[in-house]
Amino acid sequence: MIDLRSDTVTLPSDEMRQAAHDAEVGDDVYGGDPTVNELEARAAELFGKEAGLFVPSGTMGNQIAARVHTEPGQEALVDAKAHVYKWEVGGFAQLSSLQVRAYDAGERGAPTPEQVREHLKEESLHIAGTGLLCLENTHNARGGIAIPKADIDAAAQAAHDHGVPVHLDGARVLNACVALDEDPADMAEHVDSVMFCLSKGLGAPVGSMLVGTEEFIAQATRVRKQFGGGMRQAGIIAAPGLVALDNVERLADDHENAKILAEGLDAVEGLSVPTPDTNIVVVDSEEKEMTSDEFVALCESVDVLGGGFGEYHTRLTTNLNVSQADVEEAVERIGDAVESR
Amino acid sequence: MIDLRSDTVTLPSDEMRQAAHDAEVGDDVYGGDPTVNELEARAAELFGKEAGLFVPSGTMGNQIAARVHTEPGQEALVDAKAHVYKWEVGGFAQLSSLQVRAYDAGERGAPTPEQVREHLKEESLHIAGTGLLCLENTHNARGGIAIPKADIDAAAQAAHDHGVPVHLDGARVLNACVALDEDPADMAEHVDSVMFCLSKGLGAPVGSMLVGTEEFIAQATRVRKQFGGGMRQAGIIAAPGLVALDNVERLADDHENAKILAEGLDAVEGLSVPTPDTNIVVVDSEEKEMTSDEFVALCESVDVLGGGFGEYHTRLTTNLNVSQADVEEAVERIGDAVESR
Amino acid sequence: MIDLRSDTVTLPSDEMRQAAHDAEVGDDVYGGDPTVNELEARAAELFGKEAGLFVPSGTMGNQIAARVHTEPGQEALVDAKAHVYKWEVGGFAQLSSLQVRAYDAGERGAPTPEQVREHLKEESLHIAGTGLLCLENTHNARGGIAIPKADIDAAAQAAHDHGVPVHLDGARVLNACVALDEDPADMAEHVDSVMFCLSKGLGAPVGSMLVGTEEFIAQATRVRKQFGGGMRQAGIIAAPGLVALDNVERLADDHENAKILAEGLDAVEGLSVPTPDTNIVVVDSEEKEMTSDEFVALCESVDVLGGGFGEYHTRLTTNLNVSQADVEEAVERIGDAVESR
Amino acid sequence: MIDLRSDTVTLPSDEMRQAAHDAEVGDDVYGGDPTVNELEARAAELFGKEAGLFVPSGTMGNQIAARVHTEPGQEALVDAKAHVYKWEVGGFAQLSSLQVRAYDAGERGAPTPEQVREHLKEESLHIAGTGLLCLENTHNARGGIAIPKADIDAAAQAAHDHGVPVHLDGARVLNACVALDEDPADMAEHVDSVMFCLSKGLGAPVGSMLVGTEEFIAQATRVRKQFGGGMRQAGIIAAPGLVALDNVERLADDHENAKILAEGLDAVEGLSVPTPDTNIVVVDSEEKEMTSDEFVALCESVDVLGGGFGEYHTRLTTNLNVSQADVEEAVERIGDAVESR
Repeated sequence: MIDLRSDTVTLPSDEMRQAAHDAEVGDDVYGGDPTVNELEARAAELFGKEAGLFVPSGTMGNQIAARVHTEPGQEALVDAKAHVYKWEVGGFAQLSSLQVRAYDAGERGAPTPEQVREHLKEESLHIAGTGLLCLENTHNARGGIAIPKADIDAAAQAAHDHGVPVHLDGARVLNACVALDEDPADMAEHVDSVMFCLSKGLGAPVGSMLVGTEEFIAQATRVRKQFGGGMRQAGIIAAPGLVALDNVERLADDHENAKILAEGLDAVEGLSVPTPDTNIVVVDSEEKEMTSDEFVALCESVDVLGGGFGEYHTRLTTNLNVSQADVEEAVERIGDAVESR
Repeated sequence: MIDLRSDTVTLPSDEMRQAAHDAEVGDDVYGGDPTVNELEARAAELFGKEAGLFVPSGTMGNQIAARVHTEPGQEALVDAKAHVYKWEVGGFAQLSSLQVRAYDAGERGAPTPEQVREHLKEESLHIAGTGLLCLENTHNARGGIAIPKADIDAAAQAAHDHGVPVHLDGARVLNACVALDEDPADMAEHVDSVMFCLSKGLGAPVGSMLVGTEEFIAQATRVRKQFGGGMRQAGIIAAPGLVALDNVERLADDHENAKILAEGLDAVEGLSVPTPDTNIVVVDSEEKEMTSDEFVALCESVDVLGGGFGEYHTRLTTNLNVSQADVEEAVERIGDAVESR
Repeated sequence: MIDLRSDTVTLPSDEMRQAAHDAEVGDDVYGGDPTVNELEARAAELFGKEAGLFVPSGTMGNQIAARVHTEPGQEALVDAKAHVYKWEVGGFAQLSSLQVRAYDAGERGAPTPEQVREHLKEESLHIAGTGLLCLENTHNARGGIAIPKADIDAAAQAAHDHGVPVHLDGARVLNACVALDEDPADMAEHVDSVMFCLSKGLGAPVGSMLVGTEEFIAQATRVRKQFGGGMRQAGIIAAPGLVALDNVERLADDHENAKILAEGLDAVEGLSVPTPDTNIVVVDSEEKEMTSDEFVALCESVDVLGGGFGEYHTRLTTNLNVSQADVEEAVERIGDAVESR
Repeated sequence: MIDLRSDTVTLPSDEMRQAAHDAEVGDDVYGGDPTVNELEARAAELFGKEAGLFVPSGTMGNQIAARVHTEPGQEALVDAKAHVYKWEVGGFAQLSSLQVRAYDAGERGAPTPEQVREHLKEESLHIAGTGLLCLENTHNARGGIAIPKADIDAAAQAAHDHGVPVHLDGARVLNACVALDEDPADMAEHVDSVMFCLSKGLGAPVGSMLVGTEEFIAQATRVRKQFGGGMRQAGIIAAPGLVALDNVERLADDHENAKILAEGLDAVEGLSVPTPDTNIVVVDSEEKEMTSDEFVALCESVDVLGGGFGEYHTRLTTNLNVSQADVEEAVERIGDAVESR
């Protein structure tokens, strides 16, 4: 079975398991877990921010950021296909009383400064003012686009010009940094906070990081407690997270494998597969008159797992547990199956 | 001064003032105000619904409807230019923990059934399911479009097919009915609730109505109390509301005046003004290189009041207090002012 | 029928009706209603505050105040029998994400400074800090107690010492002022905002006032819009409100009638009725082994209306529409009915 | 250093670390982590419920339960000293729009049926109806009281008689079961959901369990995702949780140590220490005129850690990492220090 459903399915390495076993721990709710503290410091340093916070999931990291940056009754400006809007169960409204205003980032992934300005709302008697610009890099639902620092900076600048803070949903921002050969701290230079996941391509079993100013993280710590994300001897999972931070360069392999997968499948008649920026390959099977449901089923019939991504689009995601041989094998199996259909 | 800012500025007639003076009243929080009861019954009957509720504003009527129809953590499907989204201070998120999902109704004003289906979300582990479709007729921000019953019905049907209730923000739905020569009860046949305003073109000083099933109104009454909309001897303002319901046919005059205004201004060089469906005239002054701010100022300099409606668009609204002579005078004044600019 | 259910049932006088008829009005959402503006200015002056806001109900006034004074996730400190806690449909949690912390004000009606200090919470990682102290004068559910300025001041001072703002739910604060011969501005000297009702003992048909600093009222105006309390030609109801403000001294009659009622009923065997501070008379019928339901029914059988106020307690409220002859008549009827039971 | 601050500070055993190392894992967001699945099944079985859910913290477990059991705008009935009210950052209001209504459980820990009935609210136009009764066993802030099944049952029955669901905050319910020699499934027989912690006396590094009906857990899973508690390869922490479930009988040692500690300190002049039901020892140092701050500092000066628990009360908590020798040593050190003060 070649599992390409998501990079969230990655299994922890032996090194990570050993790190969990050996972790020095304490009660992190009291700030007393040295492993968590080390991870938080290292995450902050990686992104050039003052402080970091370990959270159980990327969703919690994003939701905490929104809660801290905004006041109830404001608007969050997000892409129409943003994860925070599509796949976080309406959390902005529920947890932060935030109204979503969506722009269409298109294939660029990030809004142009003009788009930001167009959708920014000035608070008035009738109007909910914009309280947050939320960017996403890489952009998951738009095919793992690695958005260049310049585009992030330009959008952030447009928001800051109007006093609006900027959060980066960087669940896979390290994929973007590797793909673009950009330093994470540079990528994050002009955003106020970043959430990034240890548990996706980096392979840690559990957890994400939120980084920002010390004041922001102090408030985030309190919101984390309220949302139920305060954990005790969390060093057990922070330790594999530290190992994960050594895996960053390895993401290049996933990207290389994704390219091989995309090119292989694009050569299959009836499939159209653009070359991916990072580790997310989106297969268009419309020409073959196969819906995504049909294509996913066909893949499964040859022991390859993928996920629906629209009516005729299917997402295949390379990750830590998938080798070059695996993707070549996947191309062959899927190719045969499509042709013999 | 010819005030075309909005039909919300209409002043109550002598008959309305006399009705306020003479109203039989009681404590409406206890259901004991006969005038309010009569108004609620009459509103319900007019729209062919079981029951009605008197509320202090259209915004409250819409917000109560959303609160009653949905559960927290769902989505409300609305037009990108809907009043509930643009001008109600983010109330859906704040008061009902609702996430907004916006379609683009374009010049049609109502979504096609395909648009409804495209944006409907099935609730899942990650996804906030759609809990409400909210339509608006006439559509204010799209220029007072009178949307035919067939389009309302088709959109409502698409929502109902997926078990999603439909609310009609009918702040000016009686304008639509008059313009289309449609019976209000027919217009509302396939929507679950309607809010309409007594205080706009109908000229009542205060108040709007919410109509729906008895069960819906029972719940709405409780939410109204929570939102602070329970009033005491409200018959004093319900009585002019009853008079307002006799004003419905008169809306045709506003539409006629709006046409005269639109045609007159469209003839002015540099202005482009489409013929309005109802009482909202939208002037495009871009060809003249006048921003809306400039055009509004120019109008004000000749004692005509209008309101900004986009960078180069200005809204002029005919109403009860504006006669045919007034709009002819307004055309002349604005025409002269534009030409001599 | 002698209606003693509440002073909310008062009917507007001829003078109020005439004022409604004659009111100069405008669109108050745009700040353009001169009668509303006059009423707001006069209310502010009466309580020695910078600005005022006309709202459709006392509940909305209290809820707006809580929303403006606090941040979500704080605590509001209230009496266990406060109106805002018992009878406002859980609005603090719903509209402001506020947790309620209740003290027991007992027969004093106001908390002692020690009680305030005891219940104040310092915000911490685990603890929702106190964001508001809400007082109530007169205290409805404790029998219309008129709380002296000194007690209000002492409680407010204790809160202010910890940076906590104070709101006074003064639905009947003018009753307290009249009973205590206290100037309203002195009574409100040390609280940050006051809500008081025009529609109870003062007899106006609809509406309450919120007063506070200019900045507070500016924010309150926006929250009022969000809650749906923005009204248009509201002068029609503000005008009777202005007349109501001339009725303040008349509240002494209600208090006198309440005393007559209380003393008369206390003389009935089996009833125990303390002498009231203001216009709320609480009858204890336990000695007579009559539940409140039974006592209310018995009163109704002799055409006197009251309301349940606990298992053996019934509230009778004197008001504008009830004369001294009425209360004497009520005593006689109830006395006879109780005796012949 | 003898750390008696809390049983949350317990460090995972070697066996737990090995279990983390060896855990079979998968993506739990997709339900694909066999270790988590095993833990959830075992937790459900232990408490005689249909299904279980692994959550990152006890706070999240309680908050999810409240969210699932109730509708916004209801009341939660809790003890005045309940953890959910005192130490969960106002989550009920923030996350579930719930108003708290507090009874005083006193030394009984659980409310009597009369107390439940007294505080239950029937929903009405003005009143937020009771949506949840939340019990706590053992009762932390009341000194680790082990509440007998009969008291839990009686309170639950009183709530159920009025259709109100019951949640048990059982952060330390296994301590109660061991102390009372009660089967957990019997203890939970009449409550609708239970949260219990793996990370306190049981010694697991991270996590708590929520158990209830299948339908309840299905909804809870979705709320967990929204609150950000969905974790990926959570088997790494679920595995030590499984080991923790083998530690239940061992809690008797903590209780025995707590008794030794209490009796030892009670013998110190000026200290008053009631015999504890479970592992929470509350020291009253008022007779000695030592505030809790002073007593905690004095303990710390002799390398014993405790926590403030009121003005003159200090909490000392025995746990997995504290031996009988430790508590005897602690008695000696504290005794000497108090005497020589």
